[in-house]
Amino acid sequence: MQLEEKKALFTSCKAQYAAFQAENLKLDMSRGKPSPKQLDLTNEMITCLKEDDYLAQNGLDCRNYGCLDGLPEAKTFFAPMLGVSPDELIVCGNSSLNMMFWTMSLAMTNGVLGSKPWGKYDKVKVLCPVPGYDRHFAVSEYLGMELISVPMKEDGPDMDVVEKLVAKDDTIKAIWCVPVYSNPGGVVYSDDVVKRFAALKPAAKDFRIFWDNAYCVHHLTDNPPKPLNLLEEAKKVGNEDICYMFASTSKITFPGAGVAMMAASATNIASLKNALSFSTIGYDKMNQLRHLRFFGGKFESLIEHMKRHKELIAPKFAIVIDTLKRELGDLGIASWSEPVGGYFISFDQKGCAKRIVQLCKEAGVVLTGAGASFPYGIDPDDQNIRISPTFPTEEELQKAMEVFACSAKLAALEQELG
Amino acid sequence: MQLEEKKALFTSCKAQYAAFQAENLKLDMSRGKPSPKQLDLTNEMITCLKEDDYLAQNGLDCRNYGCLDGLPEAKTFFAPMLGVSPDELIVCGNSSLNMMFWTMSLAMTNGVLGSKPWGKYDKVKVLCPVPGYDRHFAVSEYLGMELISVPMKEDGPDMDVVEKLVAKDDTIKAIWCVPVYSNPGGVVYSDDVVKRFAALKPAAKDFRIFWDNAYCVHHLTDNPPKPLNLLEEAKKVGNEDICYMFASTSKITFPGAGVAMMAASATNIASLKNALSFSTIGYDKMNQLRHLRFFGGKFESLIEHMKRHKELIAPKFAIVIDTLKRELGDLGIASWSEPVGGYFISFDQKGCAKRIVQLCKEAGVVLTGAGASFPYGIDPDDQNIRISPTFPTEEELQKAMEVFACSAKLAALEQELG
Repeated sequence: MQLEEKKALFTSCKAQYAAFQAENLKLDMSRGKPSPKQLDLTNEMITCLKEDDYLAQNGLDCRNYGCLDGLPEAKTFFAPMLGVSPDELIVCGNSSLNMMFWTMSLAMTNGVLGSKPWGKYDKVKVLCPVPGYDRHFAVSEYLGMELISVPMKEDGPDMDVVEKLVAKDDTIKAIWCVPVYSNPGGVVYSDDVVKRFAALKPAAKDFRIFWDNAYCVHHLTDNPPKPLNLLEEAKKVGNEDICYMFASTSKITFPGAGVAMMAASATNIASLKNALSFSTIGYDKMNQLRHLRFFGGKFESLIEHMKRHKELIAPKFAIVIDTLKRELGDLGIASWSEPVGGYFISFDQKGCAKRIVQLCKEAGVVLTGAGASFPYGIDPDDQNIRISPTFPTEEELQKAMEVFACSAKLAALEQELG
Repeated sequence: MQLEEKKALFTSCKAQYAAFQAENLKLDMSRGKPSPKQLDLTNEMITCLKEDDYLAQNGLDCRNYGCLDGLPEAKTFFAPMLGVSPDELIVCGNSSLNMMFWTMSLAMTNGVLGSKPWGKYDKVKVLCPVPGYDRHFAVSEYLGMELISVPMKEDGPDMDVVEKLVAKDDTIKAIWCVPVYSNPGGVVYSDDVVKRFAALKPAAKDFRIFWDNAYCVHHLTDNPPKPLNLLEEAKKVGNEDICYMFASTSKITFPGAGVAMMAASATNIASLKNALSFSTIGYDKMNQLRHLRFFGGKFESLIEHMKRHKELIAPKFAIVIDTLKRELGDLGIASWSEPVGGYFISFDQKGCAKRIVQLCKEAGVVLTGAGASFPYGIDPDDQNIRISPTFPTEEELQKAMEVFACSAKLAALEQELG
């Protein structure tokens, strides 16, 4: 593009932006929230329990105390989600983030399988594949850990870097992973990456992979990828204690009233159950029962249910991708992910992320803060923005993406033309 | 009683005990669990939400993420339970024990209002009024704290001892309290005790009173005691940051699916909310809504509801007390509490607790383990047994108490006659 062309584009973009501003928009794409229409898919769960429906299969009264690690039938029902046996699962309350916080905090106070409590070290460190999930990094930072960035590649974290770092430093105690449709890149870890994680030999014997499989059944295609199961692979090489795996129904049923779960080796589960016995008397079994009734106790029903989510959100992903292609495709200023599942699109435009977020905000479109996907909120190249297309309506999203694309062009042109 | 009389009693008790054993009883008085009939009082809560009933008063969608510290109307509704303003309350998930664990664990990892993390000390200590609640002590022990017993008096912990200990040792960081109908003694802290707690000046600036008001509305009389409010008293003397207060509806609605809450000073609440933002995205707001609908949003309805609990459990307390009086009243071997609320009766018989629990067990009556009410499970006088009368039916309880009284007599006579 010639300079004059650029100047003309700048002028027209400015005019377009001013027009957007005049619309007094109020659009929120800041978090990966399901839309009200998605939540409506689950409304029958509100009423699916009847007044006399509170007994588990074994006769246990779900209204009362007890059953620390989840209803037996809930374990059976949810085990396929993480690809484990029911014995390897604990079915929890409404928040998998809470289980991750609890598990990491527990390592700080009590160590892992009898190791020295992480909190007794001057400093312990955690590996953070970037771009990644801000709340993961925030948990570790809050607990006093040092965050170390590891680059993400197209098939997962850069395992050369991971293996090298954990081999030499026994104060590196953990890594955060979202192995399927990673947040925000939508990356699905390749078989090679999963196998290398399974075989990881960290200097720290109490190292743990925090494997947040938040989007394991959240497909946008009919032929989803079939990633390897970390725990299964780890067992094959006698390394099964290395991981904690997490999932929830937050983006399957209700984000505020779903069911979370964690899975691990028999040894880890025994230790975690013991710790859990000090932390609570038990989770909400009535809500576990509600989930069982809603899905008729059949995991295939849950998979079918996810197809109805797909019908609602796949068009939204298409709006984002199509708009980016149409508006920015020929300019060579930016790149973005085209995920086949999950909740996010990752957008990169070097040196422009903060400015784009600011421009969007000033035109009434709230995005996740620039830098959020990096440790300490610092994106070294100021390039990454996480786009969360699920919550707005299609009309709102279309408008928001036009504002976004216009802001992206403005930011690039400001950078070049000053 | 003459020796011959004693021998005759021993013989008849042995015969009675053998008869009990022949009945193959299977009765459980081990934990403070509400009975199924009590849970039935709340069954309408299972169905009280309709399919389109998921919006909070401010329009917030309770199905979705958000609202970290509880629905505004849930805060308003539950604030009177702990006698605080809605701003001083966080409405949580189904477990107040979990909030206590979380809060104490947080002090270990992050300190309190910016203090040095407790976990960074070689050893920190917690005061445990005895007899007390085994799960409280277990939380601290699990987190690596040293447990220090403080004797309970008739109106609360011995404050002379508490004040002296906390004044001289800045590694004493906390005390566990059940201020109303204490577990297991049923003690209601006197105004003087509450005021002395409110004015406590520990050497440790990050000392916290863990004030578990689990039984605050669990009365067995129509004219319940009106204890002072700790936070209110602490404010009067400018010491309001000294306490965390907890309660739940576990013994009001459903133990497994109730709503927990915590209260504290504005400064503490701000700090706890910040910590909470790393621990979860939010608690189950649908269940908070269910509670609001069930009680019609009126706290007086909750108080009325507790009267229906009382109708079911007061006769059970009477069975325990009447049986103990009838069977042991004249023997001078034991003493017991006669609480006007709560869930427990505390029974003392010097040197006999373990033996009584064992005898009961061998006759099919399971009690809370002897020593459970003491740090490390060690009752120095082997005298205290916690009786939990709520779960069995009246018929079962009557039988169980006869077994208990017989076992108490046997234990005393064994001790004396060998």
